[in-house]
Amino acid sequence: MSQTAMAQINGARLLESLQALGQIGALPGGGVNRLALSDADRLGRDWAVARMRESGLRVEVDAIGNIFGHWPGLQDGPPVMMGSHIDTVRTGGLYDGNYGVLAALEVVRTLREAGIKPQRPLAVAIFTNEEGARFQPDMMGSLVYVGGMPLAQALASCDSEGLTVAAELQRIGYQGSVPVGAPQADSYLELHIEQGPVLERQGIQIGVVEGVQGISWTEFTVAGQSNHAGTTPMALRHDAALVAAKVAVHARELAQRMGGRQLATVGALQLSPNLVNVIAQKAVFTVDLRNTDAAALAQAEAELLAFAERAAQAEGVQLRTRSLARFEPVVFDAQLVDLVESQASALACTHLRMPSGAGHDAQMLARVCPSAMIFVPSVGGLSHNVREYTAPDDLLRGAQILLQVALLLANRTS
Amino acid sequence: MSQTAMAQINGARLLESLQALGQIGALPGGGVNRLALSDADRLGRDWAVARMRESGLRVEVDAIGNIFGHWPGLQDGPPVMMGSHIDTVRTGGLYDGNYGVLAALEVVRTLREAGIKPQRPLAVAIFTNEEGARFQPDMMGSLVYVGGMPLAQALASCDSEGLTVAAELQRIGYQGSVPVGAPQADSYLELHIEQGPVLERQGIQIGVVEGVQGISWTEFTVAGQSNHAGTTPMALRHDAALVAAKVAVHARELAQRMGGRQLATVGALQLSPNLVNVIAQKAVFTVDLRNTDAAALAQAEAELLAFAERAAQAEGVQLRTRSLARFEPVVFDAQLVDLVESQASALACTHLRMPSGAGHDAQMLARVCPSAMIFVPSVGGLSHNVREYTAPDDLLRGAQILLQVALLLANRTS
Repeated sequence: MSQTAMAQINGARLLESLQALGQIGALPGGGVNRLALSDADRLGRDWAVARMRESGLRVEVDAIGNIFGHWPGLQDGPPVMMGSHIDTVRTGGLYDGNYGVLAALEVVRTLREAGIKPQRPLAVAIFTNEEGARFQPDMMGSLVYVGGMPLAQALASCDSEGLTVAAELQRIGYQGSVPVGAPQADSYLELHIEQGPVLERQGIQIGVVEGVQGISWTEFTVAGQSNHAGTTPMALRHDAALVAAKVAVHARELAQRMGGRQLATVGALQLSPNLVNVIAQKAVFTVDLRNTDAAALAQAEAELLAFAERAAQAEGVQLRTRSLARFEPVVFDAQLVDLVESQASALACTHLRMPSGAGHDAQMLARVCPSAMIFVPSVGGLSHNVREYTAPDDLLRGAQILLQVALLLANRTS
Repeated sequence: MSQTAMAQINGARLLESLQALGQIGALPGGGVNRLALSDADRLGRDWAVARMRESGLRVEVDAIGNIFGHWPGLQDGPPVMMGSHIDTVRTGGLYDGNYGVLAALEVVRTLREAGIKPQRPLAVAIFTNEEGARFQPDMMGSLVYVGGMPLAQALASCDSEGLTVAAELQRIGYQGSVPVGAPQADSYLELHIEQGPVLERQGIQIGVVEGVQGISWTEFTVAGQSNHAGTTPMALRHDAALVAAKVAVHARELAQRMGGRQLATVGALQLSPNLVNVIAQKAVFTVDLRNTDAAALAQAEAELLAFAERAAQAEGVQLRTRSLARFEPVVFDAQLVDLVESQASALACTHLRMPSGAGHDAQMLARVCPSAMIFVPSVGGLSHNVREYTAPDDLLRGAQILLQVALLLANRTS
């Protein structure tokens, strides 16, 4: 531990690197647009690879475009991997993903300059297309890396203009020769902004992420009967909008009644014909349910569907549902989570065990190696937003904990 | 009454005339598009004026394009006016409006052929732009006729392409020289399809219309806070969609609780950004409230607004409202309503006293003379729809009652 206590990450350099990468694809009023496999993504990758090489890392690119920067340890073997992504949404910020990659790079730079050589190798990973804003699915690079999707299927994914991942990877020069799944990782650490308001609201510095909540997205289509709002008695109506509204209200009630980590959101809703004086013939809406507990999530889905079916029957309308996305909750490695917590304590940081509300590459890596995440506060809970911001002190605290956890992992004897 | 019993309207001719007018502006798959002051409207007007003249009517056009066909009585004086409109919505049917005009014409033709000359003159009226589908407001011609809107204001109304009522009236040759408000009417009768399901559902042949329900249209704008559906705890949300949904559910509950003639509809609702995983920042929706009782309608408005304000406060969102339309209920002349009912009885028709759910020119005429309406069933309650349909027997029953009521009015001594 004496080694660790001496190595302090270079905060000024970390902040400068975040600003520098944020210049690539910068939007006029602030924020960044660096969609996966775009020209801006290529420039961002080129910049990051150059920084890796400057810092003594050996760079490899795999067949789905994931970039790995290797720093040898005193022994051979699978590296302790740290990373995230550098693609953004169309109107993204400077921190989502980028922070995890650049803090990982800063960890290696700091250790190198401090003359600290860990037992196990370290690696800095940049995963392709985490956002899914241009090519589906999101978390594509890490999903393919862990064997969760065949390479060919990912390469065939098209954007809205019909361009494939394969063609765009080739065009930007990042379809690498390393087979997907290599290098095997000893363990995986991802430092990330929270993208939610919990830490800031509670005045807490570090989120010790225990897992990623499960996600259930369902599209409901209600088919009622269009009729004149002025001539159709209430008792004779088959109002698709009413059933949609009832389900939206019920979703909130359900989440409140279940409590715990249950979330429920009706964020999209479209009526037809959508006129002031016409009873809606059709309502299409989505329900986003999330929970860290797999059984509770399934229960929420079942209860909501049962309610929707009763409401539809009472109104005499038809109901169809379609699953848009379904991910089981991911639980991070208990020992790694404990390690993150102990290092937050060692640095006298206030901290909170919490789930991740959003999806991250770490949830894919958790399938193949012990994985964990560290969160720092997001001002206003904002993310996927040009106003995304985390205060410098918070950024430095997170990076320092990443360094200490990575070093302890790389030097552990068991 | 012996005269009346003898004169039977020519049903075949009435049905033929409905089909013939329905050919003008006919849509490929059925139905009609004869938007106000369009070329199709001009052709429809030309056709109707020709039929009036053939039938011995003297035709006048006023400054807002209303057409009056005059048939003299044995005495001079204000005519018993019968009428409706022949403009349609973009995808309209053959009956809405047209039926009231052509049945009125058929009444005059029938009386003329039967050699029956009433004491008072009769007039057949075609009011300009009842639908409001191209130029606002709806019921424009009758509104201007009764002095409810200055002529200049109506003439200045623009369609979505910037064309004015004045310019289009001139273009189609129907800006007449008769000052608006002339001729003064002794009384007004309007025969119309119900445009709702009540008569058909109850197996009733004639609706004795007691008035037009009051209408209140309000647009609600809810301003909440956009946030990530996966990272924002339920307790920290300011969800605009939830408040919209609560108000929509409450509107139904309110109408059911109030009972009577209270109607409530949320037919239009738009969320922003309208994404599955983003809490809605904004919801804009409309509430359509209707009641035949003015006090009850005002109570419904107040209760709904109070509920919306409480729901907005509970969710921590802002609420704005904007009145889109507000009409007090109209009560038709009690003696005229009784007369309609007595003639429905005399013809052994099943009948029901009911309000009109939709707006009609008769509600404007009620401001200046005793007015009433007669309804016949609409199959499936459909209207403003190319599938609008009323069975021939129902059409003929309605026209026969119109004839008898008009003749009694024209011959009354008081």
